[in-house]
Amino acid sequence: MRYAPTMNTGPMRLKTSLALLIVVLISACGANPRNAGAADNVQKIVIAHRGASGYLPEHTLAAKAVAHAQGADYIEQDLVMTRDDRVIVLHDHHLDQVTNVRDIFPDRHREDGRFYVIDFTLEEIRSLSVFERFETVNEVSTPVFEDRFPFAKSHFEVHTFEEEIELVQGMNKSMGRSVGIYPEIKSPAFHTHEGKDLSQAVLDILKTYGYVEKSDRVYLQCFDWAEIRRIHNELMPQMGMDLRLVQLLELSEEFKQLREDGAFVNLAKVADGIGPSIHMIVEPDSPATELRITKLVTLAHAAGMEVHPYTFRRDAGSIPDYANGFEDLLDIFLYEVGVDGIFTDFPDLAARYIESRQGLESQAQ
Amino acid sequence: MRYAPTMNTGPMRLKTSLALLIVVLISACGANPRNAGAADNVQKIVIAHRGASGYLPEHTLAAKAVAHAQGADYIEQDLVMTRDDRVIVLHDHHLDQVTNVRDIFPDRHREDGRFYVIDFTLEEIRSLSVFERFETVNEVSTPVFEDRFPFAKSHFEVHTFEEEIELVQGMNKSMGRSVGIYPEIKSPAFHTHEGKDLSQAVLDILKTYGYVEKSDRVYLQCFDWAEIRRIHNELMPQMGMDLRLVQLLELSEEFKQLREDGAFVNLAKVADGIGPSIHMIVEPDSPATELRITKLVTLAHAAGMEVHPYTFRRDAGSIPDYANGFEDLLDIFLYEVGVDGIFTDFPDLAARYIESRQGLESQAQ
Repeated sequence: MRYAPTMNTGPMRLKTSLALLIVVLISACGANPRNAGAADNVQKIVIAHRGASGYLPEHTLAAKAVAHAQGADYIEQDLVMTRDDRVIVLHDHHLDQVTNVRDIFPDRHREDGRFYVIDFTLEEIRSLSVFERFETVNEVSTPVFEDRFPFAKSHFEVHTFEEEIELVQGMNKSMGRSVGIYPEIKSPAFHTHEGKDLSQAVLDILKTYGYVEKSDRVYLQCFDWAEIRRIHNELMPQMGMDLRLVQLLELSEEFKQLREDGAFVNLAKVADGIGPSIHMIVEPDSPATELRITKLVTLAHAAGMEVHPYTFRRDAGSIPDYANGFEDLLDIFLYEVGVDGIFTDFPDLAARYIESRQGLESQAQ
Repeated sequence: MRYAPTMNTGPMRLKTSLALLIVVLISACGANPRNAGAADNVQKIVIAHRGASGYLPEHTLAAKAVAHAQGADYIEQDLVMTRDDRVIVLHDHHLDQVTNVRDIFPDRHREDGRFYVIDFTLEEIRSLSVFERFETVNEVSTPVFEDRFPFAKSHFEVHTFEEEIELVQGMNKSMGRSVGIYPEIKSPAFHTHEGKDLSQAVLDILKTYGYVEKSDRVYLQCFDWAEIRRIHNELMPQMGMDLRLVQLLELSEEFKQLREDGAFVNLAKVADGIGPSIHMIVEPDSPATELRITKLVTLAHAAGMEVHPYTFRRDAGSIPDYANGFEDLLDIFLYEVGVDGIFTDFPDLAARYIESRQGLESQAQ
């Protein structure tokens, strides 16, 4: 059984293929589009990826509060549903790589050995401790990023989508800011298979908290093209809502279809932006002296869409060889390629870099 | 029954007296000691008072994480003890002005109507929600600071001293900083009366987490002069510890005794610093054109002690009339009077102001 999001149209199945990626990216290589971005004069946005997850365990309220204080423009929420139909903030529908669920409920895994959010009530999930993301091999757990917050220290818990919105809106009041939210509907096909309508529940909460129009401070994102269309064509009209939608993209046939068929024009009828991997924009094995930049951003901008690539990390091993450090990576994407915003685990560094660039530009004028 | 800390020596009873205050402060008025501070060339420190409590509910882990990210040098912990001997972080030994204890355990108050931490286990206290500080009159609850984080929003809990230390040390690792802690033993006489040795428990935890010597990043503070002496003369020597101690001061006879008898010299044999109210340093009704500054800082510096006054708030009504805004208040205390550090609910503003002043000074050199 597959739990990855699946398409309901024939040729648009998600299937990561590195060989295909290379074909797609090389064929898409264009001239170096310095300052070719359609939105270069608009404020670049910093999206805190799972919060300030470079400094605190991802998707905890503390990580979100720090992201807000560090100057993020938007804060991301990955959303999944519990057995009792509550929407919680967690990277995916498994509990076993960020909590102590194995210790607290050792027998509650499925046949594949994984612990599914959807098999637990909110109250049960609240009784767990959240840790820095880890991998477990032969019963030995190792943090994914060793230089980040130490494993299994302090005390963090899983929280609901409502609690996170109240945190962001509450800090907007106390800090005099207008930080937005960037929720993602995770694995809608899996949720549907389990009898849950996650998108409907998310839209209900968004409407309750005042996120209704495109001008409101929210982008709603999803990898599932069928679900994005359902939200756009069915759910939002039924609810009198019209939010900005972002189609996430990964290294897959789906992207190839969207690009090769001139599909960005069709995509733009539904989505306001795309969220591609950084490797779909700059080939990861580009030489530093001659970046191989794909046509992705140019095509998206031409279709009127914003581009918010993921994920900008400064951890050891996370910066492509073509970039001379984290700031150079930011510079390449924000000011050379010309993307409109970025997902980053280090919102302070991105916000500071954008501020310093704007300072330079205003001095030059 | 009084629960305020009491002295065990005759004349040194704590008793707030505004009339006495005026006598003491006016008699202490000296020449404007611009740059008279003993430690003017040393880095001024920002102590996050109950965390970044201007932006998030006080003493929550989120408020502490934000204080760390905002550049605080030290983060304060007020410490009290539960029925099952756990040390938790809470402003005082009552639960009813910052949690929903009245709703969850309506019958568990004492005769005075208050809900005491010491009557609840840690597990019970963890089941409560923490709110922005409020006052309840005729069953109507009103936030103390109306422009801060909204009342009863999102979800926060009480945590232990150990969990807070692990947060600070964990963020020190992930952010590459060395933020210190500034714990306060709250109401030791009350705890002793209830059969608890709070100071011993706090020292045990501090030692476990590596806070042992004066060079370690901790100041241990208390209002109770008898307890400060006990910690210095009995507990720390028994445990092979030698931490920096700070005697807190308030508008009371105690301060008068300490000053008039030349007692700062004796105090300095035990304490490394004092933590007075800002109103003991600058008379609150000073004209802006001619600040009436007491001799307190001069006397403390002469005795070799640091001075860390409390509390710097930018909220409406919290800035004395003599100061032209929050930054002016910071300037008066840090650079005119010359204190060594400040307790503030707004660590970002204080850190930014100190940084900007240092920038100006280095440009001038």
